[in-house]
Amino acid sequence: MKEKNPTTNQKTFRLDGIYPPLPTPFDEKGQAALEALKSNLAFLNRFDLRGFIVLGTNGEYVMLSEKEKLLVLETARAAIPADKLMIAGTGCQSTAGTIDLTQKAAEIGADAALIITPSYYRSQMTPATLIHHYRAVADNSPIPILVYNMPASTNVDLEAEPIVTLARHPNIMGVKDSSGNVVKIGDIYRQVQKEGLDFQILAGSAGFLLPALSVGAVGGVLALANIAPAQCIAIHRFFLEGKLQEARDLQTRMIPVNAAVTARWSVPGLKAAMDFLGMYGGPVRQPLLPIPDETRKLLETILLEGGIKK
Amino acid sequence: MKEKNPTTNQKTFRLDGIYPPLPTPFDEKGQAALEALKSNLAFLNRFDLRGFIVLGTNGEYVMLSEKEKLLVLETARAAIPADKLMIAGTGCQSTAGTIDLTQKAAEIGADAALIITPSYYRSQMTPATLIHHYRAVADNSPIPILVYNMPASTNVDLEAEPIVTLARHPNIMGVKDSSGNVVKIGDIYRQVQKEGLDFQILAGSAGFLLPALSVGAVGGVLALANIAPAQCIAIHRFFLEGKLQEARDLQTRMIPVNAAVTARWSVPGLKAAMDFLGMYGGPVRQPLLPIPDETRKLLETILLEGGIKK
Amino acid sequence: MKEKNPTTNQKTFRLDGIYPPLPTPFDEKGQAALEALKSNLAFLNRFDLRGFIVLGTNGEYVMLSEKEKLLVLETARAAIPADKLMIAGTGCQSTAGTIDLTQKAAEIGADAALIITPSYYRSQMTPATLIHHYRAVADNSPIPILVYNMPASTNVDLEAEPIVTLARHPNIMGVKDSSGNVVKIGDIYRQVQKEGLDFQILAGSAGFLLPALSVGAVGGVLALANIAPAQCIAIHRFFLEGKLQEARDLQTRMIPVNAAVTARWSVPGLKAAMDFLGMYGGPVRQPLLPIPDETRKLLETILLEGGIKK
Amino acid sequence: MKEKNPTTNQKTFRLDGIYPPLPTPFDEKGQAALEALKSNLAFLNRFDLRGFIVLGTNGEYVMLSEKEKLLVLETARAAIPADKLMIAGTGCQSTAGTIDLTQKAAEIGADAALIITPSYYRSQMTPATLIHHYRAVADNSPIPILVYNMPASTNVDLEAEPIVTLARHPNIMGVKDSSGNVVKIGDIYRQVQKEGLDFQILAGSAGFLLPALSVGAVGGVLALANIAPAQCIAIHRFFLEGKLQEARDLQTRMIPVNAAVTARWSVPGLKAAMDFLGMYGGPVRQPLLPIPDETRKLLETILLEGGIKK
Repeated sequence: MKEKNPTTNQKTFRLDGIYPPLPTPFDEKGQAALEALKSNLAFLNRFDLRGFIVLGTNGEYVMLSEKEKLLVLETARAAIPADKLMIAGTGCQSTAGTIDLTQKAAEIGADAALIITPSYYRSQMTPATLIHHYRAVADNSPIPILVYNMPASTNVDLEAEPIVTLARHPNIMGVKDSSGNVVKIGDIYRQVQKEGLDFQILAGSAGFLLPALSVGAVGGVLALANIAPAQCIAIHRFFLEGKLQEARDLQTRMIPVNAAVTARWSVPGLKAAMDFLGMYGGPVRQPLLPIPDETRKLLETILLEGGIKK
Repeated sequence: MKEKNPTTNQKTFRLDGIYPPLPTPFDEKGQAALEALKSNLAFLNRFDLRGFIVLGTNGEYVMLSEKEKLLVLETARAAIPADKLMIAGTGCQSTAGTIDLTQKAAEIGADAALIITPSYYRSQMTPATLIHHYRAVADNSPIPILVYNMPASTNVDLEAEPIVTLARHPNIMGVKDSSGNVVKIGDIYRQVQKEGLDFQILAGSAGFLLPALSVGAVGGVLALANIAPAQCIAIHRFFLEGKLQEARDLQTRMIPVNAAVTARWSVPGLKAAMDFLGMYGGPVRQPLLPIPDETRKLLETILLEGGIKK
Repeated sequence: MKEKNPTTNQKTFRLDGIYPPLPTPFDEKGQAALEALKSNLAFLNRFDLRGFIVLGTNGEYVMLSEKEKLLVLETARAAIPADKLMIAGTGCQSTAGTIDLTQKAAEIGADAALIITPSYYRSQMTPATLIHHYRAVADNSPIPILVYNMPASTNVDLEAEPIVTLARHPNIMGVKDSSGNVVKIGDIYRQVQKEGLDFQILAGSAGFLLPALSVGAVGGVLALANIAPAQCIAIHRFFLEGKLQEARDLQTRMIPVNAAVTARWSVPGLKAAMDFLGMYGGPVRQPLLPIPDETRKLLETILLEGGIKK
Repeated sequence: MKEKNPTTNQKTFRLDGIYPPLPTPFDEKGQAALEALKSNLAFLNRFDLRGFIVLGTNGEYVMLSEKEKLLVLETARAAIPADKLMIAGTGCQSTAGTIDLTQKAAEIGADAALIITPSYYRSQMTPATLIHHYRAVADNSPIPILVYNMPASTNVDLEAEPIVTLARHPNIMGVKDSSGNVVKIGDIYRQVQKEGLDFQILAGSAGFLLPALSVGAVGGVLALANIAPAQCIAIHRFFLEGKLQEARDLQTRMIPVNAAVTARWSVPGLKAAMDFLGMYGGPVRQPLLPIPDETRKLLETILLEGGIKK
């Protein structure tokens, strides 16, 4: 088992690869459906994924109670093989709450924690304040942490400079950036290379996986990987093998499919796609609403045209 | 006591007036300082305020556990006279969580609930989805609700049209709008007047109180009212008495003071101002940081120049 | 005639009142229809307007050649009575071009020039750069200038601070602010009052005329004043007379009408409304397109409901 | 010479490669310095560039009179070898003005025209309106046109869908996209490939050249190519040769250099860099201001660290 001592450099493992951010399944009464989570993981474990995000945006984590969060983490950990990483989304609006949940996730066996930028007091979330927050969490976390930049949800967009500052912390191992700003990704890569820092960048959405890899990302946390794990893995592999035309063709083919389960229809689209593909998608929690029938048909056409289902 | 039956029209009381959104005091260990909350209320009760918001943005509600929230509500209710309204901030990211907390607040004696727009899944927070959310909450709330539009924190900005749609619900009594868009306020006023709806508009920040009153708002939820209750009340009264020059002079004089405790330095600025004025401000919760000494001096100058302290 | 000497303080006249920003009429071949401009002015001259903006946003100035601009200014000046102000829109992307056109407008008899913020190199349009630009123009203008802040078109939003700095210049007499930010208007008013500066604020859209007046504006440049001059003047007069309920009712009634000829359908909406009301609206220049028939019917309904036409 | 007949498909040449958007040199009096333009071109002609953009954003085209524009085009055409493309920036706010200038540029010998989105009446610049505009220009242009999407200046961001619609026009040959949105680039590539359209995509800034190439762009219009032509060409060549590590290292190394001459210090930064490197940069036109001495030193450090100058 990995050493987990925050006082020494923890950045001892590689993140390279593809990670689905797991949706949290609910039953018809709206309760967490843990058996469905297991069956989804059983399906995904057949693919060469590097690991899983539990309690991310696609996990509807903002709608779960703490008790539910811990239950989901425990269930997932039991169903994720030891050689695959479990990264837990443990960010809260308060620093203390984030530390507390991160410690609990570590106890459950999370390998790392993905910490979203606090955002409610946005005008005060300066780079300096966010650096202070992340350092406090990293200092008190038994497991290494990843910065999670998700401006579409938070309206906070952490730039390259503060991220590189954070990269110097021994317990901050990487960043998941969902902004789609590949210039920033390239700039972070350049600076951490120059300083010889062990810091790894994950693309936050499949729409720009290949472009992100081209400038230094080592993988991606991809909603799409829940429904198209083979394709996401193949884009990465084609890139590593220098098969650029194949990578480009698959990458661009995935764009409308990815949009359907992210920006366009979000978690309701993703869960509907999972249902269509024989996984357990199930209901979303309100205020999210299930996609209407007409949208569902359009989604199915997109999945068929994208070659996700034959 | 008020009838609290969601199946009949609950809009039986007037909101006209000024409401401070109470900060939640913390002690040096970071715990909720309930005695300080009482002493602040004892001070504010000397003014002709219409009531108080508990657990709003200034109450750092996103950083409180549910247990803390209920404790703060109970303490506040006991310290707020029966003839003054207690409006509880009970919005959560999920509809079910919002309903649950609203019901608990009602049991504690809140007169109404202030429900912020859910925002995490922003791309999905269409007017239709938000209308669905608010109706579900209103249908299940024993007390009337107010819509809380706060784009600076949520990046969701509810327009006039969906707000007017919600105004037709028997248990949705008003809106607190912090966007500063007075055209929207005027447009809501026009439409609810035209339809004869009982729906009341509160300005969400003291910077535009007078302009909002001029187009139909009936009062305001004003961070500034924590430190300048007399001035806020006077702007309202001058307006009602047609003393426009006096209203304008006081309104514009308050602009830099208000900015200091809202957009510019937020809750850290407000709590520092309270400390300076002899109330209990105390520490903020991280990631918020106390304002630095230099800023504190600037803030004090602003308070003195604004006539808040002599 | 007014003294026009840039070396002395030119701020010798009052701007108080309502100004329509005149559309530039085109004939069916797309040429400037100067007779139509005269007939529109003949109609508007029957109202107690303070003056006119020529070559503003509604004048489609960005689509006119310099030759056309001068022709329109000359025609308008001849048709505007000497006791009414002609304010010319002479802003260009370059400082030199702005100075040149301002001088030509002054020769033609413009009383003041309305100078929009340059915006193409937006990332460089810092407050300092814009202050430099406006000072250069003011130093070289024979007539006083007004700053024109129009973020909906320019995506540049000049804040209170640089505007107050500019207010100290002897040849910068005021600002037309179309941002709708009434806190900013109040803040400018406060500071120029405090410093005893002769600086006048005009609201840039009828949607927030009354709120702007309540915090210190002295009038407005209002697209709506082209089709509802009596109503715009009445809002102003009601305000000055302290008839707040009448002011509010008329102000809020005008909101949908104003939106139809500004943000919603812009110049195409305004010109269609003028046609409907018996003035000369006529075609717009491409890329603007005439509003479709369906929209035209909706527009007419809005005009009828707003009481603009009986 | 190329056939230039708008009624037949003109898309007969390839755009693949790198294009510097030429700055327009001014002398100390602010007049166009045509000899300097020639000497800059003489320097750049030594590199394997595919062609040049004349009158683009870096050419300060919004600050040039029409007479100056034609003079600059004529001078550039005479100094650009026949086997290199001259693409003229001929977009104006009006459709008619754009057509007129495009026709004049064609007469002077431009191979294609780069047409920026009109933007002043932003609320009206819907996809449908912009499609109408571009079709009108393409129908009336003797040379093929490229769509120029530059939201940093225009605040208009044309999405993939309308661009693909335009790609079906026989006289619209490509797009220069400066938004940095590589998902959009990939999506356009996918759709034009699927439909078998001859439509070519150029990256609009060197910061994301490699990521754009990875998803289907064929080259770039790069301010950076004025001062680092060899490096820009090398990134492209490394990519074509499958040398991904070399491409990545050079691409990321160029990021701070590119930022210095684009988003950060814009044309003033570019011209200062050219001066430093022995080309003719010279003054900018106001409201742009020369970069201050302190910035100049920082810029020089960035150029040295980036390996642009030894």
